[in-house]
Amino acid sequence: MERDKRGSSFEQAPAKARVAHHLSPVMRPRIALTVGDPAGIGPETVFAALARADVRARASLVVIGPEALRPVDVPQFREGAPPSHVEWSATEGPECWSMGEVQASCGAAAVAALRRAHELALAGDVDAIVTAPVNKAALHAAGTHVEGQTELLASWCGATRYEMIGIAGALRVMLLTRHMPLADALVAIRHACEVGGQLEAHLALFDEALRDLIGIDAPRIAVAGQNPHAGEGGILGRDELDHIAPAVARARAAGLDVSGPISPDAVFHDALHGRYDGVLALYHDQAFIPLKLLAAGRGVTVIAGLPYLRLSPMHGTAFDIAGRGLADPTNLVEALLRAAELVERRR
Amino acid sequence: MERDKRGSSFEQAPAKARVAHHLSPVMRPRIALTVGDPAGIGPETVFAALARADVRARASLVVIGPEALRPVDVPQFREGAPPSHVEWSATEGPECWSMGEVQASCGAAAVAALRRAHELALAGDVDAIVTAPVNKAALHAAGTHVEGQTELLASWCGATRYEMIGIAGALRVMLLTRHMPLADALVAIRHACEVGGQLEAHLALFDEALRDLIGIDAPRIAVAGQNPHAGEGGILGRDELDHIAPAVARARAAGLDVSGPISPDAVFHDALHGRYDGVLALYHDQAFIPLKLLAAGRGVTVIAGLPYLRLSPMHGTAFDIAGRGLADPTNLVEALLRAAELVERRR
Repeated sequence: MERDKRGSSFEQAPAKARVAHHLSPVMRPRIALTVGDPAGIGPETVFAALARADVRARASLVVIGPEALRPVDVPQFREGAPPSHVEWSATEGPECWSMGEVQASCGAAAVAALRRAHELALAGDVDAIVTAPVNKAALHAAGTHVEGQTELLASWCGATRYEMIGIAGALRVMLLTRHMPLADALVAIRHACEVGGQLEAHLALFDEALRDLIGIDAPRIAVAGQNPHAGEGGILGRDELDHIAPAVARARAAGLDVSGPISPDAVFHDALHGRYDGVLALYHDQAFIPLKLLAAGRGVTVIAGLPYLRLSPMHGTAFDIAGRGLADPTNLVEALLRAAELVERRR
Repeated sequence: MERDKRGSSFEQAPAKARVAHHLSPVMRPRIALTVGDPAGIGPETVFAALARADVRARASLVVIGPEALRPVDVPQFREGAPPSHVEWSATEGPECWSMGEVQASCGAAAVAALRRAHELALAGDVDAIVTAPVNKAALHAAGTHVEGQTELLASWCGATRYEMIGIAGALRVMLLTRHMPLADALVAIRHACEVGGQLEAHLALFDEALRDLIGIDAPRIAVAGQNPHAGEGGILGRDELDHIAPAVARARAAGLDVSGPISPDAVFHDALHGRYDGVLALYHDQAFIPLKLLAAGRGVTVIAGLPYLRLSPMHGTAFDIAGRGLADPTNLVEALLRAAELVERRR
């Protein structure tokens, strides 16, 4: 499917989508919203999100993407239009492309949009960044050899330590280990518990992000256990007693409000119900089973360790359905509303 | 706190609790309900459940427990009263006891009530058993050296293979491994995948229980993976390729509708949304993180491998709050309503 520069038409949403502006434009959180890879579902979810009354009532948006995607039939998106609470910031990109395919031009366009968002955030011109998805293969085709947007932002910021925080409702989870076999994760967890190791470092980063990015004054963090019932006093495993608890104790001695290790089958439930502000999960599925179960298409991620607030939906470019009107904007809408909420909370 | 034989008063519930009998008593599923350990929260949750209009509308109940607990102010509970849709079946037990304490007399009373329920179920006099909790220490004090009620029922039935199925909403989960350190579970999972091993045996038992107890004609079972993204084709672990997938293939060749291994962070979500009728989880927390998160006090268990349907709430005797009016009957009510639903579905 060819995508030409025929403008998109998010303004044709139902009339009620244009009413509830309960915040004056000046007060609204100002958010940079990148369209991501033009060949993916990013642009269509962006336009669907822009048509939502709740999004437009809660945020001033700077939408960033190639000129070819700029909607021509929307007055405030016209070139040279005075700033409004929804404006377009055009970045480098191709004139046309094929939907749902890996293209160097689209990868480069995604990087250009992200770079503009980074610059606006670093300069304080926006309060937060929300990013639609990019395609790793397209980034590589464009000569940008990274896993994804997070590493790009971190490298531009000169951030040496950064970690994703997954958010689903009141549940906020950071991971100690990520993409590795579970058996390897158990070894990595043990190493992470050494004096001055990754567990302590993650807790410090998590605490800082919960304060500075999420706006919680005195964050209460729980560390999940590794074994059933967190080892049940050593009967079901000694990792908690011998490694995890001492590392948690050191973090506590360093001034952090950290509990644990807590039974893995209780800690996410407890956090969801307000007992903790964040959970440090030890391995991939310990975090993603509860996050994906609760999120139901609404899970978002925040990056700890960046000097500004950046949120993203959890889905990818979905090349298989891109440009066919099948993409669900719910997750991007959630990221935008969450970003607005977090900015407001920090004010 | 002393408990005397002053009758309980579930009949004093609001009037509306006594109306909606939409099923004739003959049609209602007939359920044996044991009071569990008299010193725990079993009796008070039983009486609270009996006061619920929805419970009484959906089931005919044979409440089983010591004479001392029989409510004297309820006509149909009087000794020699004609059978009604709520009746009392008195079993051996003490005249008085201390609430919240381990007592041999209470352990013995719990066993006697359970035995009566077993006999009624085996004789076909009831359609299902729902059991309030017992205390392991009290069972041991009474000379019954078992982990809990499930093993007692299994031994009385002569069942050699039996497994718990945790149910939370539409999610039904059986566990391949249970209470052991996670590192040991990984070894046990590998052994379970051997030809004719536990994985195949669990799947056969699960399939049978979903058919015979849960009433699903052609159960679709998913096996969770062990590693992130179920190993992602070997990049994140080879356990799926080398061990789990071959065992699943053998179960499929034996005629079971089994899928997997499926990415652990997707399979519970997918099952909850109707894609699978049951999930075989590989280790304790893989099952209990989603079950406890979703159940929110409503999770129930069914035992696969018994010749009758037995449900129980997920909580214990809660000796710390027993007899103080603090116990929440929600979980027991859920077990009763679920039991009624399952009996109706099988008819």
